[in-house]
Formats: sequence, C-alpha cells, structure tokens
Amino acid sequence: VVVIIDNASFDKRPIGVFDSGLGGLTALRQIYKALPCEQVVYFGDTGRVPYGTRSDETVIKYVNQDIRFISSFDIKLLLLACNTATSIALDRLKDSFGFPVIGVVENASTAAVNATKTGSVLVLGTSATIRSKSYIKRLNALNPAIEIYEQACPLLVPLVENGRYKVDDEIVRLILKEYLDPFKGKDIDTVILGCTHYPLLSEAVQRTVGDCVTLIDSGKEAVSSIHGMITPNEYADRRDDRFYVSDSVHNFEALAETLLGETIYGSVEKVDIDLY
Amino acid sequence: VVVIIDNASFDKRPIGVFDSGLGGLTALRQIYKALPCEQVVYFGDTGRVPYGTRSDETVIKYVNQDIRFISSFDIKLLLLACNTATSIALDRLKDSFGFPVIGVVENASTAAVNATKTGSVLVLGTSATIRSKSYIKRLNALNPAIEIYEQACPLLVPLVENGRYKVDDEIVRLILKEYLDPFKGKDIDTVILGCTHYPLLSEAVQRTVGDCVTLIDSGKEAVSSIHGMITPNEYADRRDDRFYVSDSVHNFEALAETLLGETIYGSVEKVDIDLY
Repeated sequence: VVVIIDNASFDKRPIGVFDSGLGGLTALRQIYKALPCEQVVYFGDTGRVPYGTRSDETVIKYVNQDIRFISSFDIKLLLLACNTATSIALDRLKDSFGFPVIGVVENASTAAVNATKTGSVLVLGTSATIRSKSYIKRLNALNPAIEIYEQACPLLVPLVENGRYKVDDEIVRLILKEYLDPFKGKDIDTVILGCTHYPLLSEAVQRTVGDCVTLIDSGKEAVSSIHGMITPNEYADRRDDRFYVSDSVHNFEALAETLLGETIYGSVEKVDIDLY
Repeated sequence: VVVIIDNASFDKRPIGVFDSGLGGLTALRQIYKALPCEQVVYFGDTGRVPYGTRSDETVIKYVNQDIRFISSFDIKLLLLACNTATSIALDRLKDSFGFPVIGVVENASTAAVNATKTGSVLVLGTSATIRSKSYIKRLNALNPAIEIYEQACPLLVPLVENGRYKVDDEIVRLILKEYLDPFKGKDIDTVILGCTHYPLLSEAVQRTVGDCVTLIDSGKEAVSSIHGMITPNEYADRRDDRFYVSDSVHNFEALAETLLGETIYGSVEKVDIDLY
C-alpha cells in the first residue's frame, strides 16, 4: 500500500492566541495538548494587564489594538483566550477579519449546561466579565431553565499574576472562601472558571467548593472546538512558536513557564502595542 | 493703615499632580489641607495602573508620556505623587522641564531619619520601588548608620484600587500580617508608607505594627516641602481644579471621592494618553 501525503492539504499557518496578560497561557497549554501539530503566535498585553477592572471603552480600544497587531501575522484562527475581551469585544470584532475569531465564553457555557445535573451554575469572572452579563446571555440562550449565579472576583488576577495560586496559600484560601461562601446551599454542581487565569486556582477552588462540583475551564473548552474549524498543520516545531508581550520579556519569562507547564522554546519579543 | 496687595506677586498657575492611578489623591488631600490657595491639575493613569509590577523600561515610557501630557498645562510645579514613578524615572526627568518636578521619596526619607529613635526603619513599597533601591540610597545618604529593612507589597495596590483597605477587613489584616510579621523583633520604630496608595491602609498598618511605631506618609511629606518652592496663589476655587484620567471618568469618580476625602468640584475628563 502506498500512502500519498498531499502537503497542500495541510495549513501551516499558526493559530493566534491573545490574552490581556499571562492567563491565556493556560489555554495555550490546552492547545499544546489537544492540537500538538499547530504552530502558535501568542500575544500577552503585559504592559496593560489587568483588563478586568477597566471600563468597556478601554477594553474595546485595547483589544482593537491587540488584534491589529496579531492579525499582522498570517494566522488561520484567533483564540481570544481572555474572558474579559471575549465578553466585551468579541461580538463587535468576530466578523471583521479574514480568519475566524473564537472566544472563551460560548464553549464554556455549553460545557456547563451539559455538565450540570442540578441546573444551578456559578460563574466566576472579572468585574468586567460579570458586568457584561455575557455568560447569563449565553447560558440562558442554551437553556432558559438554568439557575445562574455570578461572582466578580477582582482580586484573583492580581493573586495569580503575583504567583499566588497554590492550594496551601492561606490568602488564596480566604479570598476564595469570601467569594464562594455566599453560594453555599444553592445546590450548585457546576462552576465556570470564567477567566483564563483561574485554572491555576483549580485545586484551591475545588477544595473550597468540594469534590462533587464540576469546574469548567473556559480555555480548555474553547480549544476543544478549534479542531473542527481549521485545516490542520502537519507538524509543529515548538522552536517556531512566537511569543510577544507589551512589557519586558524578562518579566514574562519568569512566570510564563510555570503557567504554561513547560519550557518555552520559541522566540519571546516585546512589542510597542500602542503603535497599533 | 492701607494694605496694598500686589496681584503680580501671586502665581495663579496650578500645581500638577501625577499618579499611576488613584493613590495620588491621598497626596492631593494633603495639598488641599496644607496649600489651600493652590489650584491643581491631576492626572491619574487609570487605564494602565498598576505601575509597581511593571518593568523599569515600561514605567519610564509611561511616565514620559504622562509628563508630556501634564506639562501641556501651564503648571508651576509637578508633584510625582507615585513612589514607583519617583523611584524609577525622577532622576532622568527632573531637569528636563521649565518647572520643578518633585517626587515622594526624598522627603519621606528625611522624615523617617528624623523620626527614628532606634535607627531601624522599614520601607513598604511596590515591587518596582523596592527593586530600585531608591529608599536605601536616600536613607543611606542621609545617615549611613540607619538600619534599613524593605518589603515589596505587590498585593496592596490591587486591594486599595478595589476599595479594600478598612481596618476590619480580614483579607487586609492577613496580607499585612504576612508582609509585616518577618520584621518583628527588629526594633523598627518607623515605617515608610512608600506608595501613595498605602495611607489608606494607615489604620490597618498601625494596628499590625502597634501604636509605638511612626508611619511616614510619603505624599504628605512631599507636600510639606512645596511651600518653599513656589510663589503662592491668592485663592483657589475648587471648581477650577481639573482632573484627567486615561480610563473612564465614571470608574474614577466612583472611588476618587473616598480616597480624596471630599467632593470633587472640578472637571473630570478622559485623555488618550498613548497619543503623548
């Protein structure tokens, strides 16, 4: 049997991944696992993180600049691996480009609706994500009977960006307790981690809510939907992945490998994002 | 007796006040108290706060833009009411303008050296301020015998910017305990609040370190030095003060009056800081 591989049927263009900072690396980790043959261009707006406490107008302005930058690469798909950017800017942006733009709210909502048995779902997110009601709209559209609870958690991104997410960290434990205790007795069996920083806190959240509650990782769910949306690449060399940040490369590298869970072999460069 | 007031001997130009966000309002509060006849132009870079966790190169870039903006007003003096900006950028900037630029490190250091009896001083600041060693250099120059301890407190600015600074806040209490407990038994009698956000936490810090420790408010000390550096104004109308922010005006107003401790009567406008 002779197998003829038609190289033209592969699409070597990279997938673009954007986050306001380092949180999107948890989604990139999922790409490395689920789509190991895809090259990646990552941009983290580390010079202006966090987005989740800023106004809609500022988030929209920043995301416009971010996408102008990342679309300067010949990408086949853009993953907005940031719930704040997805919640506030995706609807305005998704049809403006020659490549598909997917966010992290839609698939997480579908996964939550599929996962819940009690019909009670809790959404954790940044102040901007919760204010946008993006999850309420999507969950309601999927199943109007779902009981939705929401909690803005403005202190979680600063904690993670400062490397504070371990399960035995007393401050992490107390802040999570404060955010989650109000929902005790609500029969919630599914919690959406509605920020790509939060998967780092999975273990700590699980300990707070108990083992019977399903945690939904919004980045992971988005990545699982990419497979059907692209023509795959044949093989990815991690040394060809490209990382861009808007603050210093040094600060990025210090935390990035922890969040990504592996060594970064690709190039890391700084970009002057306000020129875009 | 006829008193002749020579109007020409007053200088009606406003004092410029800059901070990375809202923290500088604690210094503005001191201007309102100590220099009630001075008009003020305030700029808070709320679209890019916090500065204290960013790299030197990014802080310098941002502060350059900030000063280019605020120097577009005819100001008689600029107060860099931000310890991070002072520590990293003041030396490069202070002689570049036609008006004096004063920071918040120098006078706080002098006050600490004057206050300490034990000769042991603790400096609390952002990661960038502590990394810069600005307080160590200044304190050593004033008195090489001073024993200096330093603690970077990266979680305090996010706490304050989220309105979390009250003395009975359990999270505030525990984070302060974590930052301050390592210095027990060091005979420290003076703590420099080396960030203009921290005076909001004065009561909580005082409770943690005890009543015998003197807290130095860096904004207050800087303001006390302005008196001799300017030709005073005759009278200030608070309605003529001008406030500028780089994120939405609405978000600013919500917290600003709490930090300032009084109503804002002047105009509040948004500025596109990356155009500067």
